[in-house]
Amino acid sequence: MKLSAEVQSCVDLCTACSATCFNEAMNHCLEAGGDHLKPEHFRLMMACAEICRSSAAVMLTGVPQHVFVCNACAEFCRACADSCEKVGDMQDCVDICRKCGQSCEKMSSSVRKAA
Amino acid sequence: MKLSAEVQSCVDLCTACSATCFNEAMNHCLEAGGDHLKPEHFRLMMACAEICRSSAAVMLTGVPQHVFVCNACAEFCRACADSCEKVGDMQDCVDICRKCGQSCEKMSSSVRKAA
Amino acid sequence: MKLSAEVQSCVDLCTACSATCFNEAMNHCLEAGGDHLKPEHFRLMMACAEICRSSAAVMLTGVPQHVFVCNACAEFCRACADSCEKVGDMQDCVDICRKCGQSCEKMSSSVRKAA
Amino acid sequence: MKLSAEVQSCVDLCTACSATCFNEAMNHCLEAGGDHLKPEHFRLMMACAEICRSSAAVMLTGVPQHVFVCNACAEFCRACADSCEKVGDMQDCVDICRKCGQSCEKMSSSVRKAA
Repeated sequence: MKLSAEVQSCVDLCTACSATCFNEAMNHCLEAGGDHLKPEHFRLMMACAEICRSSAAVMLTGVPQHVFVCNACAEFCRACADSCEKVGDMQDCVDICRKCGQSCEKMSSSVRKAA
Repeated sequence: MKLSAEVQSCVDLCTACSATCFNEAMNHCLEAGGDHLKPEHFRLMMACAEICRSSAAVMLTGVPQHVFVCNACAEFCRACADSCEKVGDMQDCVDICRKCGQSCEKMSSSVRKAA
Repeated sequence: MKLSAEVQSCVDLCTACSATCFNEAMNHCLEAGGDHLKPEHFRLMMACAEICRSSAAVMLTGVPQHVFVCNACAEFCRACADSCEKVGDMQDCVDICRKCGQSCEKMSSSVRKAA
Repeated sequence: MKLSAEVQSCVDLCTACSATCFNEAMNHCLEAGGDHLKPEHFRLMMACAEICRSSAAVMLTGVPQHVFVCNACAEFCRACADSCEKVGDMQDCVDICRKCGQSCEKMSSSVRKAA
């Protein structure tokens, strides 16, 4: 069993988004200080890094329930992109969160229809 | 900021559920063979272990969006409990998945109402 | 195959240490500011949370190579405990890091002898 | 603070190695059965996936202690590559484990000298 091209692309985006959020938080935000270290913003970056990494792993297992994690992941990516935009000087993070969020949303469209 | 007793209890259940699923898969299932190693069952156990662990971490960050991960986690716990029941001889896993699933569902009831 | 009492105890300490470091970083440190947010200290807390969680998971797989991860984990626990002591007002974190580090060190004594 | 090119390359290899081990275990091994599901082999693949993923995350934090995790990671990559070679029909996994192990070993050469 191979992952479909669509799932593989979402795995890749989740992996990249997790690494970017984590690395930016640990390096850029911690050193920039100010709004970059506001608890709400920083927590969101860490939570987004966590769920994106986990979303990629769940997709790699191949279980059909991955759509539920993608659905959650899309919410975090949107919230994190918005927060990064407000803080400013975080365009890499904004960009990957938007792309990853859109991919996760597409992945989970069946959940949204069923709700 | 301290976690509420309700969130802390869900963190504890997610942590215990993840460890039980992972350890049972790695030890009980791999050694028992047969239905215990059917791909659908085994993948679900690994995916449940992954999302439960991640759900606990996201709750520990304190972001309000944790409800979306709990919502996804509840789906995995239910599916994993059902699969463990069908395979049989996995009562510890069934029990913790049911408890964790109920806790996650309660945690995410706001998501379900909003849908 | 059941985990030995000694390994199970180390799994429990690693799990508790990871949760404490992560939660303290996300809540106590981010809100306290000052030395609590010095990049070196905060990164160490996140790295300690990460490796402790992973160390627990590797022990749960039952592979004998877990001693190498425990060896690494002991280094992080010591460094994190020292850093928390210097920052101050982080006694919970100091205590669990010390306990977890000692348990991991015992677990990995075979690696240290072989080196 | 940017990661050095050498660390970034090790992060990328650890990430790729983790995804390959996890996906091959979940899909190739579970479906192939036989030696692919021998407990020792399968556990090693899961443990290697876990520690490689964690090693990448620890490097992304930027703490100098990452060398201890890389040291542990190199052991798992070697053991996993050997096990995959013996089982056979797992060349992708062998290749990425060898590359990742060499990168982690280089990263941790300071630990080995100090021992």
